[in-house]
Amino acid sequence: MVIHRGDMKEETKEHMRDGEGSAHLTYLLDAGTKKNARMFAEITLNKGCSIGYHKHESETEYFFIVSGTGIVNDDGKEIQVRQGDAVITGNGASHGIKNTGSAPLVFHAVIITY
Amino acid sequence: MVIHRGDMKEETKEHMRDGEGSAHLTYLLDAGTKKNARMFAEITLNKGCSIGYHKHESETEYFFIVSGTGIVNDDGKEIQVRQGDAVITGNGASHGIKNTGSAPLVFHAVIITY
Repeated sequence: MVIHRGDMKEETKEHMRDGEGSAHLTYLLDAGTKKNARMFAEITLNKGCSIGYHKHESETEYFFIVSGTGIVNDDGKEIQVRQGDAVITGNGASHGIKNTGSAPLVFHAVIITY
Repeated sequence: MVIHRGDMKEETKEHMRDGEGSAHLTYLLDAGTKKNARMFAEITLNKGCSIGYHKHESETEYFFIVSGTGIVNDDGKEIQVRQGDAVITGNGASHGIKNTGSAPLVFHAVIITY
């Protein structure tokens, strides 16, 4: 099945997970197409925006940085990320992510459930 | 866990799945970090290159087109894809993908197992 960009659902969330500003999400897939997964999204954080620190239990979330630069709070440790980097958070670990650059920070987020 | 691009394993496969030319893969994650998944890769097909038509049983593969243009053989039907599009192939369906543009065709490939 091919899903074209123009047919994907989009949503802007304010203060996502108590983060700063807003996060713009494009849902790459509908709920019905997923198995052992609960989210496939492209997330855009504009300058200064963030997704707050939160925990993942019984699932793993993967971020793949498509463009831009930011700082990830990786279970308590702050690490710079940029285009091409990956972030893995699961088994009760926590994460948050903030755009610390001037260009939009764009990443793919995939949550795989157990 | 953050994995920086420079620490990712890269590989070039010739005639992947009997396709034309070569496919360059960057493995976004190591095998040990995955649960209910067997591949997370960024795949680059240069002009004219392709991954041949093949089937996915007991798993679903997702392509997210990061840049470029191509044609997907989506279980027997040829469909044009471009930046932002998604392709879902599972439950015994087949797919193949070819770069039909002049720029590299780059996509994220995720295989989720059942």
